Amino acid sequence: MKETEVHYISKPKLKSPVFIEGLPGIGLVGKIAADHLIQKTKAKKFCELYSPYFPPQVITDKQGIVRLVKNEFYYFSDAGRDFIILTGDFQGMTPDSQYEISGKILDVIEQFRPRIIYTLGGLGTGKVVKKPRVYGATTNKDHIESHKKYGVIFNGREGGGIFGASGLLLGLGKLRGIDGVCLMGETVGHVVDAKAAKTLLETLTKILNLNIDMTDLEKLVKNTERELAKIKTMQEEQAKAMQLAMTGQTSEEDIMRYIR
Amino acid sequence: MKETEVHYISKPKLKSPVFIEGLPGIGLVGKIAADHLIQKTKAKKFCELYSPYFPPQVITDKQGIVRLVKNEFYYFSDAGRDFIILTGDFQGMTPDSQYEISGKILDVIEQFRPRIIYTLGGLGTGKVVKKPRVYGATTNKDHIESHKKYGVIFNGREGGGIFGASGLLLGLGKLRGIDGVCLMGETVGHVVDAKAAKTLLETLTKILNLNIDMTDLEKLVKNTERELAKIKTMQEEQAKAMQLAMTGQTSEEDIMRYIR
Amino acid sequence: MKETEVHYISKPKLKSPVFIEGLPGIGLVGKIAADHLIQKTKAKKFCELYSPYFPPQVITDKQGIVRLVKNEFYYFSDAGRDFIILTGDFQGMTPDSQYEISGKILDVIEQFRPRIIYTLGGLGTGKVVKKPRVYGATTNKDHIESHKKYGVIFNGREGGGIFGASGLLLGLGKLRGIDGVCLMGETVGHVVDAKAAKTLLETLTKILNLNIDMTDLEKLVKNTERELAKIKTMQEEQAKAMQLAMTGQTSEEDIMRYIR
Amino acid sequence: MKETEVHYISKPKLKSPVFIEGLPGIGLVGKIAADHLIQKTKAKKFCELYSPYFPPQVITDKQGIVRLVKNEFYYFSDAGRDFIILTGDFQGMTPDSQYEISGKILDVIEQFRPRIIYTLGGLGTGKVVKKPRVYGATTNKDHIESHKKYGVIFNGREGGGIFGASGLLLGLGKLRGIDGVCLMGETVGHVVDAKAAKTLLETLTKILNLNIDMTDLEKLVKNTERELAKIKTMQEEQAKAMQLAMTGQTSEEDIMRYIR
Repeated sequence: MKETEVHYISKPKLKSPVFIEGLPGIGLVGKIAADHLIQKTKAKKFCELYSPYFPPQVITDKQGIVRLVKNEFYYFSDAGRDFIILTGDFQGMTPDSQYEISGKILDVIEQFRPRIIYTLGGLGTGKVVKKPRVYGATTNKDHIESHKKYGVIFNGREGGGIFGASGLLLGLGKLRGIDGVCLMGETVGHVVDAKAAKTLLETLTKILNLNIDMTDLEKLVKNTERELAKIKTMQEEQAKAMQLAMTGQTSEEDIMRYIR
Repeated sequence: MKETEVHYISKPKLKSPVFIEGLPGIGLVGKIAADHLIQKTKAKKFCELYSPYFPPQVITDKQGIVRLVKNEFYYFSDAGRDFIILTGDFQGMTPDSQYEISGKILDVIEQFRPRIIYTLGGLGTGKVVKKPRVYGATTNKDHIESHKKYGVIFNGREGGGIFGASGLLLGLGKLRGIDGVCLMGETVGHVVDAKAAKTLLETLTKILNLNIDMTDLEKLVKNTERELAKIKTMQEEQAKAMQLAMTGQTSEEDIMRYIR
Repeated sequence: MKETEVHYISKPKLKSPVFIEGLPGIGLVGKIAADHLIQKTKAKKFCELYSPYFPPQVITDKQGIVRLVKNEFYYFSDAGRDFIILTGDFQGMTPDSQYEISGKILDVIEQFRPRIIYTLGGLGTGKVVKKPRVYGATTNKDHIESHKKYGVIFNGREGGGIFGASGLLLGLGKLRGIDGVCLMGETVGHVVDAKAAKTLLETLTKILNLNIDMTDLEKLVKNTERELAKIKTMQEEQAKAMQLAMTGQTSEEDIMRYIR
Repeated sequence: MKETEVHYISKPKLKSPVFIEGLPGIGLVGKIAADHLIQKTKAKKFCELYSPYFPPQVITDKQGIVRLVKNEFYYFSDAGRDFIILTGDFQGMTPDSQYEISGKILDVIEQFRPRIIYTLGGLGTGKVVKKPRVYGATTNKDHIESHKKYGVIFNGREGGGIFGASGLLLGLGKLRGIDGVCLMGETVGHVVDAKAAKTLLETLTKILNLNIDMTDLEKLVKNTERELAKIKTMQEEQAKAMQLAMTGQTSEEDIMRYIR
């Protein structure tokens, strides 16, 4: 295998579908959201994508069954509207393969004349927040107002970047005349963050007028909240210890507590 | 040379051969097993594979004769059944070349309509064991029961991985409709492990109903056992020293012994 | 996207244009000069270049609008003479992509039968100078005397190198029969240096007999001068502290001042 | 430029030439020998090789003239026999490009049906020797005896390697049916070693029955000898200091001398 390959399982007939990408990224926010959406809409897999730029390995399950790492395309319909969802194990491992793979993904969805591309991701802020917000970016300013209505915040940093598939699918999509919006759930950054994923998916489903059961995701959120609570406590203790250390008011007890 | 190249020495007529891969990997377990099998079955080389993704070098022998690094295909017949064995100096040095080279290997064997692929490797556990076990993984659950009979253990870790040719030949083989089984000899991981190789080959030859003389391999095993005995002593001393250090019962003598 | 791609916005009719390259490099000297020239000549963009060897990202602006990273070709005419200017966000990230992208750039400009190539860059000297000088290099010795008249200094170091697009466009251009001159503004090296850019652009516009308003660039120069003044003070203090330290005449006060 | 390119200056008629490679490598031993041979035989350049896998740069001379980095093919005739010499600025920078470039080099020379390939290099031993020896390796054992006569030592280390063009031209040449011999001058390894180059060239010219004036090379050898003398003194002092340190007989004076 010299190049990224696309294997079709079926060729569904779809009418200007909405394309939603949720590959692994910061906090797995986009992937968790996409996987939940696939599960709840009973979306059907119609295509697999393999690439020499994924890690050179197979993945095992508990039984000892192995399979190649891959990306997967699913579709579903709701109230006469069609949707494609992309999820997967990995993104391309080298910078240039990110371009190659995003190009192959667009080759697949372009055939269905997609209405719009949504790329889902996390925005790592380093801070633990009670209620994560959803940030947006788009290749067409017409989408800003229509998404602000749903609470999406558009205030890019001049010269900032969106890296990987969530960025390139928008940028390369635009070159092919397909508009796109990136939705990013605010996340601390170094924790699998189902909480940010839930907020992100709630926003997306409101935008798309989809009715999705969030119960299973709420269970995952519990885990995330426990993780985030731990991180928050650590951050606070650390800040306190730093302050004490610098003002000279630290005690052996404080230090021990900090170390433990 | 821009791409991996296959040079045929002959084109043998083989009937649904069993394909066995034993390229260098953890503990050289797979390669030692494959090389011993080639030697004892007097398998004939029919094909060489060269790749720009092997190290850019020639290998010298004692006389000063040099040759390119390569992978080699051998075949032999036993009781009307055909077998192909792959061995070699190296695996591809870059992740994507692993995919390219595994693809070329499959191009070679696919012509012979192989019945099944066996990939041989080591499973690094970090522990020295008296009797190494053989672990299995497969692309088709039908093979689990038939291999458990021979003591092969199938209990993959969810999301675990098999890296390199031993994984990719299974995964890419499956895409071409060829079933595969990976057999892994339990090994400490950082020692050339003829002992694990012997256990692995004993299991494989039972599965394939082949009668192979193990005498030469047993000599190699002696070396391995000496090496492993040293590692085990070191590990035990280390554990003891750690424990002593932590309970405060250490003595200067203990420390010196540990350092020596 | 597997290869560098060129997207034309229009195909202007140009007569033996002068080609001027100003991609990001040392001190951003070349890019600042090229961008200012584009702005003041109201040059028109006619072509965009995208590459999988640019970073895999989109760039955001303040509004949250994103676009792919790219290089851009502009053209303008002055007194019956035509000019092409190249600017961009990045150069190729891998050594071999530098060759590929420079080749694609030459494919674009070769169609217009360019008279000469000017590549603009910085020459990092590590020293802060009051009045930066302009150094030159060329693929054809005929250009040396005609450029010395404008104060360009030609005294290459035997075996020295000019790296990236500023070097390769000359070297690869020469292979296609197009002469080139590299102009390098003397710069400290690790600061965005509008001062060196201004000197460079003044020299280039004299050579090309172009009348360009430098007012906006002078504002940027003010910033650079402040930055360079800081660096110069630091370098002097550092030299003083080193000398004191080595002669033993240092005092606690000196050390504190140096640290602060 | 996406691939290695060959640009012919002329197409000489050559009769089964001997091909001699002297690209930069350990101690520049091979390159110094090849460059001297080119100079003294007044060999003519007939071909240049450019590659995206050379560093992305042009090289300057004292005048400020720049040129692309490259490899160069020269030819000369002596007593009715033809010779091709390859020299250059660099070898390929990535492992796989070493294969690609060696392949392109063989494409050039294969047209002339070369009799034999000689690759020239250094064998880094880490030791300073009074009279460097010449070691050999070959793809065909027939060449061992005929070269031993000239003092070439053939005693490869089992599993040792010859890296880069000096190895690959032999290995890939053999695949095309061209025999080859690698000659390696013994060298300390981290110094430009004209002395090893001279010994190497003396051996090669005896083998090829060529009469080459070595005067210029002897001047270079003087420099090398001075460099090697320094290294030898350092090595001896270091060994002495180590010994003293370990036997406890060191004095402050010894330490200071060692540091100085």
